[in-house]
Amino acid sequence: MLQFEVLARSMESAARCGRFQTARGEVRTPVFMPVGTLGTVKGLTPEELRDAGAQIILGNTYHLYLRPGLDVIRHFNGLHRFMHWPGPILTDSGGFQVFSLARLQKVTEDGAAFQSHIDGSRHMLTPEKAIEIQIALDADIIMPLDRCIGYPAERDAVRAALDMTTRWTRRCQAVWQAEARPQAALFGIVQGGMYDDLRCRSAESLVALDLPGYALGGLSVGEPAEIMLSVAQKALPLLPADRPRYIMGVGTPENLVELVARGADMFDCVLPTRNARNGQLITSRGTLNISNARFREDERPADPACACYTCRRYSRAYLRHLYMARELLAYRLNSIHNIHYYTHLMADMRRAIREDAFEAFRKQFYAGRRASAD
Amino acid sequence: MLQFEVLARSMESAARCGRFQTARGEVRTPVFMPVGTLGTVKGLTPEELRDAGAQIILGNTYHLYLRPGLDVIRHFNGLHRFMHWPGPILTDSGGFQVFSLARLQKVTEDGAAFQSHIDGSRHMLTPEKAIEIQIALDADIIMPLDRCIGYPAERDAVRAALDMTTRWTRRCQAVWQAEARPQAALFGIVQGGMYDDLRCRSAESLVALDLPGYALGGLSVGEPAEIMLSVAQKALPLLPADRPRYIMGVGTPENLVELVARGADMFDCVLPTRNARNGQLITSRGTLNISNARFREDERPADPACACYTCRRYSRAYLRHLYMARELLAYRLNSIHNIHYYTHLMADMRRAIREDAFEAFRKQFYAGRRASAD
Repeated sequence: MLQFEVLARSMESAARCGRFQTARGEVRTPVFMPVGTLGTVKGLTPEELRDAGAQIILGNTYHLYLRPGLDVIRHFNGLHRFMHWPGPILTDSGGFQVFSLARLQKVTEDGAAFQSHIDGSRHMLTPEKAIEIQIALDADIIMPLDRCIGYPAERDAVRAALDMTTRWTRRCQAVWQAEARPQAALFGIVQGGMYDDLRCRSAESLVALDLPGYALGGLSVGEPAEIMLSVAQKALPLLPADRPRYIMGVGTPENLVELVARGADMFDCVLPTRNARNGQLITSRGTLNISNARFREDERPADPACACYTCRRYSRAYLRHLYMARELLAYRLNSIHNIHYYTHLMADMRRAIREDAFEAFRKQFYAGRRASAD
Repeated sequence: MLQFEVLARSMESAARCGRFQTARGEVRTPVFMPVGTLGTVKGLTPEELRDAGAQIILGNTYHLYLRPGLDVIRHFNGLHRFMHWPGPILTDSGGFQVFSLARLQKVTEDGAAFQSHIDGSRHMLTPEKAIEIQIALDADIIMPLDRCIGYPAERDAVRAALDMTTRWTRRCQAVWQAEARPQAALFGIVQGGMYDDLRCRSAESLVALDLPGYALGGLSVGEPAEIMLSVAQKALPLLPADRPRYIMGVGTPENLVELVARGADMFDCVLPTRNARNGQLITSRGTLNISNARFREDERPADPACACYTCRRYSRAYLRHLYMARELLAYRLNSIHNIHYYTHLMADMRRAIREDAFEAFRKQFYAGRRASAD
């Protein structure tokens, strides 16, 4: 199991600071997990991820199942050795991609039949298969197959989806227990859309399964930020205080601060890496669009307060030049900076919670982010 | 000046091993210079270049003049600080790109009028301007504007082009002397196409200018390898033995070995980096097309005899997966390997020359390259 331990609690909010153990090392929470879709966080080496402060990364079951395929990963005894990342890995169940990226054929009680978005080949993802794949990947934290619903959605559809998620989670738990792989911690995923009572229904039935950790899924699917925060605020207290609480697929730095304030411990999101590849540098003093002509001769680093490799070495002018010329190095240097920003934002929050100064931190964070990076 | 010094000569061939000093450090010859077209060797940091064995890199005047523009480079007091590469840089004159990449408007005795391949803007490149740009880039070795002719070409056209190159070189030398920047060494570029007597005519008139180094230009422009080698073999002895001899834009590992055997000291080529981005890994036992299905589960590094970062860490299976998925990391890891292969091929040649065992080296090199990497 994860042996999650809360080390400090904020007196001013629900924020908390903790740690959990995996077979591949300790993780300090709150934590942000960079997304390594295809066995690589796009453009970066494992050493760079570590230098940028990453403790744990995410892999995508759907993508890795299609490419390179399970036989290849099995040949390497799992994803860690294949990609040369020795630290902890969390994998999703593939459900989100099957329902958003693949051509979905049919969803039954059994599972989801879909066609690959790459070559149209036909596959079937069942709860059992989702666990089997993640065990082959040898992930340290694994997720059950869930039925994710977009926004807005009808109450009946949301309720049916969350009930199916609960039944699928029980099947996942059965396989997981049969496989006897306690070093891979299975989390539950609370669904229920933006309906507070349905979130409550989902949380209750999953908490009854006594899983090592719990996630809120189906957020950041198109709803306004206030609604996301409101749903999370009501759902987070329903999750056991002695297990890590993971918000899936969220979000902006502001989202992370607000969700930590509401008691969340774990996050993943493509935002820092995807936006980096789109020329956006996220800093403590707002976000820079590096293509802006005003950076043409700007000798300053992206963020003068930042100690990342990119900011220690390169000027905004050089980063702008690389980005305008669509040079490969641009995507890489920008990604290093953004991941560093996210991991250090989490470290700052952990420190603030330990010092019971979270509200002061939050004020300072907003003052900085609202300032101009110029 | 460069203070070129020959340290050892092969008794079995014209191969030689030497060194020259620049304001930014010593360079051991024979040397291969990775191409950093736009102020970056595509995908790699300066630290990675250094780790892969690069002593000196090449920058492209034409590209840097258009992007980011001279005002930006001047603001940073040159290319080194802008791109954070502290070692020596050689820049070309821009002539090759003006004659191959830009929309050429008109070539007169004055220079070449052209339109940018990016935005169609109109520019004029004169011999004086080519030197002015390279001095702004603060390159350690600079090249005169030359008139490069393709293959095949009529004798009269080749002769006219080489004579224009000679006159342009004199104008370049005049500006260079007036600027009094001896730390930027101006080389001469011998043209003359595939006509041995015209190469001789070009070499004689340029050697008379007493420049710090000499290059053979206009090779690897479509001619068969035997013709290239034959032309180089006859032209190299016409260049002063006490100056570095640089073969521009060549080539394969086999080309480099054959040209070193004929007395060449310096090389640049996009081949290792471009082919890396096309999935070709150049090894001591032949070239791997990493997309090949036989590498799907291959746990071996690209080259078991190679000590580069890529080969120390990653399997062929992982490199194949990254390449098939068009992941950014693929281009980078492949480029690191190929540059390492090239720089270490040169280091092996330097050692063989010092030990006067160049012929034994050459035999072993061909035996390895003809073997299968499987």
